[in-house]
Amino acid sequence: MLRATYHLACDTKADATAQARDIAREQTVEVPEHTAPEVEARLVGRVESLEPDGSGRWRVVIAYDPAIVGGDVTELFNLLFGNISMKPAVRLIDLDVPESMLRALPGPRFGIPGIRELCAAPRRPLVCTATKPLGLDARALAELCYRFAKAGADIVKDDHNLADQASAPFRERVERCQEAVERANRETGGRTLYFPNVTGSLTGLAKRLDHTVRAGCRGVLVNLLPQGVDAARAIGKHGLVVLSHPTMSGAFFGADHGIAADVLYGLLYRMIGSDGVVYTNVGGRFSYFTLELCQAINRRLRAPLGPTRSAFPVPGGGVDAARIAYWIDVYGNDTMFLIGSSLLRAPDLEAATRGVVEQVRKRER
Amino acid sequence: MLRATYHLACDTKADATAQARDIAREQTVEVPEHTAPEVEARLVGRVESLEPDGSGRWRVVIAYDPAIVGGDVTELFNLLFGNISMKPAVRLIDLDVPESMLRALPGPRFGIPGIRELCAAPRRPLVCTATKPLGLDARALAELCYRFAKAGADIVKDDHNLADQASAPFRERVERCQEAVERANRETGGRTLYFPNVTGSLTGLAKRLDHTVRAGCRGVLVNLLPQGVDAARAIGKHGLVVLSHPTMSGAFFGADHGIAADVLYGLLYRMIGSDGVVYTNVGGRFSYFTLELCQAINRRLRAPLGPTRSAFPVPGGGVDAARIAYWIDVYGNDTMFLIGSSLLRAPDLEAATRGVVEQVRKRER
Repeated sequence: MLRATYHLACDTKADATAQARDIAREQTVEVPEHTAPEVEARLVGRVESLEPDGSGRWRVVIAYDPAIVGGDVTELFNLLFGNISMKPAVRLIDLDVPESMLRALPGPRFGIPGIRELCAAPRRPLVCTATKPLGLDARALAELCYRFAKAGADIVKDDHNLADQASAPFRERVERCQEAVERANRETGGRTLYFPNVTGSLTGLAKRLDHTVRAGCRGVLVNLLPQGVDAARAIGKHGLVVLSHPTMSGAFFGADHGIAADVLYGLLYRMIGSDGVVYTNVGGRFSYFTLELCQAINRRLRAPLGPTRSAFPVPGGGVDAARIAYWIDVYGNDTMFLIGSSLLRAPDLEAATRGVVEQVRKRER
Repeated sequence: MLRATYHLACDTKADATAQARDIAREQTVEVPEHTAPEVEARLVGRVESLEPDGSGRWRVVIAYDPAIVGGDVTELFNLLFGNISMKPAVRLIDLDVPESMLRALPGPRFGIPGIRELCAAPRRPLVCTATKPLGLDARALAELCYRFAKAGADIVKDDHNLADQASAPFRERVERCQEAVERANRETGGRTLYFPNVTGSLTGLAKRLDHTVRAGCRGVLVNLLPQGVDAARAIGKHGLVVLSHPTMSGAFFGADHGIAADVLYGLLYRMIGSDGVVYTNVGGRFSYFTLELCQAINRRLRAPLGPTRSAFPVPGGGVDAARIAYWIDVYGNDTMFLIGSSLLRAPDLEAATRGVVEQVRKRER
């Protein structure tokens, strides 16, 4: 069975019990009792346990028949937090996924081991930088790519706001940036990778991925929520590394409503095919994220999970280049650090990037 | 300019001002001040006004350069509520969209007038019913379609939980259900339409749409958020009516966080190509929705909006067949009523459906 644990913010056990039963029905057969008794007996979610969690909430485990989902990513999200998103005081806080479902879902195609191989970095943390701002032309973005690559960054990714704007159209940007990174690699003997942002029209995604592959890129960034939660699978089928961006996902992070960030990023985004998951680090521009939560995300992404590869945590959104050694100590080597603004505003971008690169290379031992 | 109005739940004007400036920068260039002065001067959102709204919140209008979006639906969502979703106390409550952007976005291909023409119902409200539960086989679902069509429902849609489960695989279901509806139409001289749920794998969407068109269907249901916000455009390109289902969208409806439901359903879902937008009606299974909010959604979907066609409000999730006359009086004729459970549990499904159909036909005059 697929077991989902929800927090219910209810006053009484009777309320919590009623809400749990309502969830179990709403998310499956979605009909009143006795409408189709034979089907209901098979498919209504089973409330397996319900107990107070000590903080005024109730912790309920509901078991769903995995045949409802099969390997369908859109249906997985719909089952776990579809219609109940329109109901108050329910929050998904844990998941126990049967191995059959993990096998049917895409999972990371590369994951931590695959990305490490591409970067020739068996043990150390990785450094990811970002080209921005939106509004620079493709030449200027390519120049940033070149300088980051010269300094030895492992991955240079597009800012997630770079789409197909006239200032730097997608195709031109991908070609120029990839060329710039390859040129730097030839000069340094390095292996920097360039990951363009492929988010955009749904019908155009396959063409953008084809173009990305033809340009020689090995991975991409994708804004998973607007593009669609099954986009990671589509990208993986093109043989590309998937770096998932969290834009819009904060909608799920209500105190008593939504999906816990460690479950969304650490389990769901991983199961559906992200090789690396960008999230907003504690102490940066996003106050919601505590150190405890970031560590929980990291643990989920790295933990054994049946046949599913581990995925890189990619803390960003205010990781300061000057504090990289500290963050490596806190988060450990299986981390890809996304460092953007503090490098872009440094007086010497290459020198600042090189400083970070030296810090991570020390950890190769 | 694209003008977005946000509610900020801040204590002081200084806090609100700082947050407004932060949003304007985060959602556009996403770099600290003075990183790229020329680009910043052009593209950082402009805080046009900021005033207390009388309820302890601040109302701020931020103007964005529409060139950031062009006609890119994923970028539209990213710009309006992307990274700031990870920040507290910000809620999108209104939008003023330039006509150039409305022209670049898909908009409803059919809208209210187009669906009315398909249904040969120039003035009256429409009746949409739903086949469920998940778990019935394709024959049983087709039998439900047949009975709804015999009774004269305008549209019979799949439940949004019906994907490609083994119990009723997508292709077989579409063929059987469409055949059943056509058979009923031949017998009655009616024009009932069957709309399958096409939500599923991203790479398979085009094939599912092709199959739907070949089967003879004129429209579909789609779970817009998991499928991806640009799915409506992809469906419209196949010449099919788009009925958008709200699953997962409740994540956005925090009291002080997210996107107001009337803006999400009534403006955004319409602009991106929904011909009809399902939402959870007041008084049904979903307590979040007040009558005032439902009316606000209805108004947004029907109001003049430059070149963009109006779209049908589709209140569902607990619209009781017995109260249909009441709801027509409240919501008016430009409404498609989604009636599911109360028909499915009726002792005589056809008679119950016919009762509703008679109520709406009275309004044709």
